[in-house]
Amino acid sequence: MRVVYSPSHLLHDPVFEVSGGRRIPAYEVTGRGESIRRALEADGGFAFVDPTGHGEDPITAVHDPGLLRYLAGAWSEWRQRGTGAEVIMPDTVLHPALREGMGPAPEPGSPCGRIGYWCYDTATPIVPGTYRAARDAVDVALTTAELVLGGETAAYGLCRPPGHHAARAMFGGYCYFNNAAIAAEWLVRRTGQRVGILDVDYHHGNGSQQIFWKRQDVPYASIHADPNRTYPYYAGHADEAGAGAGAGATFNQPLAAGTTDEDYLAAVDRAIDWLAARSDDLLVVSLGIDTYGQDPIGDFALTTPVYHEVGRRVAASGRRLVILQEGGYFVPALGENVRQWLRGIEGRPLDLGPRSWDGPTGG
Amino acid sequence: MRVVYSPSHLLHDPVFEVSGGRRIPAYEVTGRGESIRRALEADGGFAFVDPTGHGEDPITAVHDPGLLRYLAGAWSEWRQRGTGAEVIMPDTVLHPALREGMGPAPEPGSPCGRIGYWCYDTATPIVPGTYRAARDAVDVALTTAELVLGGETAAYGLCRPPGHHAARAMFGGYCYFNNAAIAAEWLVRRTGQRVGILDVDYHHGNGSQQIFWKRQDVPYASIHADPNRTYPYYAGHADEAGAGAGAGATFNQPLAAGTTDEDYLAAVDRAIDWLAARSDDLLVVSLGIDTYGQDPIGDFALTTPVYHEVGRRVAASGRRLVILQEGGYFVPALGENVRQWLRGIEGRPLDLGPRSWDGPTGG
Repeated sequence: MRVVYSPSHLLHDPVFEVSGGRRIPAYEVTGRGESIRRALEADGGFAFVDPTGHGEDPITAVHDPGLLRYLAGAWSEWRQRGTGAEVIMPDTVLHPALREGMGPAPEPGSPCGRIGYWCYDTATPIVPGTYRAARDAVDVALTTAELVLGGETAAYGLCRPPGHHAARAMFGGYCYFNNAAIAAEWLVRRTGQRVGILDVDYHHGNGSQQIFWKRQDVPYASIHADPNRTYPYYAGHADEAGAGAGAGATFNQPLAAGTTDEDYLAAVDRAIDWLAARSDDLLVVSLGIDTYGQDPIGDFALTTPVYHEVGRRVAASGRRLVILQEGGYFVPALGENVRQWLRGIEGRPLDLGPRSWDGPTGG
Repeated sequence: MRVVYSPSHLLHDPVFEVSGGRRIPAYEVTGRGESIRRALEADGGFAFVDPTGHGEDPITAVHDPGLLRYLAGAWSEWRQRGTGAEVIMPDTVLHPALREGMGPAPEPGSPCGRIGYWCYDTATPIVPGTYRAARDAVDVALTTAELVLGGETAAYGLCRPPGHHAARAMFGGYCYFNNAAIAAEWLVRRTGQRVGILDVDYHHGNGSQQIFWKRQDVPYASIHADPNRTYPYYAGHADEAGAGAGAGATFNQPLAAGTTDEDYLAAVDRAIDWLAARSDDLLVVSLGIDTYGQDPIGDFALTTPVYHEVGRRVAASGRRLVILQEGGYFVPALGENVRQWLRGIEGRPLDLGPRSWDGPTGG
């Protein structure tokens, strides 16, 4: 399988996030991308490909141009302010109750106001290289889509930073641009087909859901932790099914803490069946591995072999697959679990021999 | 003049807030309330009165009952979670773009989701005594309103925490319940009159504006720093004038950095004239002193004597005055500036003799 990878993800190297007012070490670290790269290299069965530039149009096809403009200029705008901030993150966010009854707010003039106009959490810091890395992650996704359009049965894009929490006009949740949504929209425009999204990240992909909420040509199926107990809190419930032309084209399966391999596979089967009835030849997969039992953020109980089996079942759906990396924060096993998933896709056997882990302390 | 004061404001004692991801010492500290209390006691011309309980009904007359319920239970809910957090503040906020096109979000089940459902910033921590202090600040406001309804020409409520950033369904900006809005609504319901709000805090009172946005019986006039450069960023522009029945009943005067006494007094005159044409006998004043030249948050250049003059001009409007404390963060001069303001109201002379300041390092 072809793997699209760019070392420029290393430019996005936040060292901390803020959780409930406390600085904690960042979960979404450079070591994640390198863990995956090394595991796939060690496997020997993957061919690495560089991304090619696709410009801004595919981004503004799903995102507010103001979001692109903001992210492009955020670091230099902040630097000019001269505060010496290590990272940029909001302390004040445009909450809907703030303008209740008043209509939309204009974009503020000040950097402090602007970041909370576009971002909704304190987990998604902007560092000097964030924009370059996020733009290249989009190109990784689009290059992966292009490989599949060019005839590959499946290709994998090692996107970092991830994307599925980014909505039309908002970033957050470690995500800046919605790589999967951008790829899906690009494929719809190229093919005229219905392109499904299968989101198997531990967290609900609120951004992907929001972007395609009123569309029937990009059906969205997500398997995730119940938002009543975890991020992103405000979307991902089972009764959210789309609206307007998109009514019935969103399928959420929120799962309980401790979800086992068996329960998870049943949810995967339901999602695959649901997508089979609503999409054509192409499927975008938002591949999160934070469902793993040892993940420091997640609370599912999945084991390494299940990733191989999920891959096998997704491949058995017969769709051509654009597989894009989302979350997964237990770095020592991240690359290994992705490798098994992709081996499952290819019909190669589960390979639980000597591990290619980065070791118990992570990458 | 009667001063309504409760020592229970001391129960709300946050030690830090988070600004751009950095913990900084809290600005909205207990010493603020005590600076004012001591200055007014030392003056000798003020009579202190305890607040009396007014129950929940005046609060839910302007706030979502869910906000009251959330604040009443937030600390114990969080404590049961057992995280050992020193304070509670959000890391993820319900941003309007998150649900764009999808309709309102249900209130999340988890504490982490709930706080960002009700709160929009990282400056407004909840500590164990916050709810009690915030409830008592409302009673301070209502007792002050009651004194004026009972015949006083003017009375002062030493509200802490302040209130004017709290909207119908949201808290933030050091504010939990909107003391001034609650008092104004209570007065409207008691008298049937139009009750104006004059907001002279350095920051725009976005909560008060939002609550009365579509009402003509509570005209809202605010003089504040331009939200294009400062908090609350998303409201307070000159072109925001109310809507529906409230069209024309909001009057914002955003001012430049470095605003002088002279420029400020001209804005005060405009606000008084505007309110005179739209309100009856009663006026609620949101009294912020963060307009002071030495304020660590503000950037106006006001001096102590101007507070006396503003008080004099407001009194000359002939309205009966319910004066409620909002912001002001240069603690050493806070009490003194409030004292001069209230002396101006009473027609007593400016008193720049030996200061009642807490000293150069604050209270």
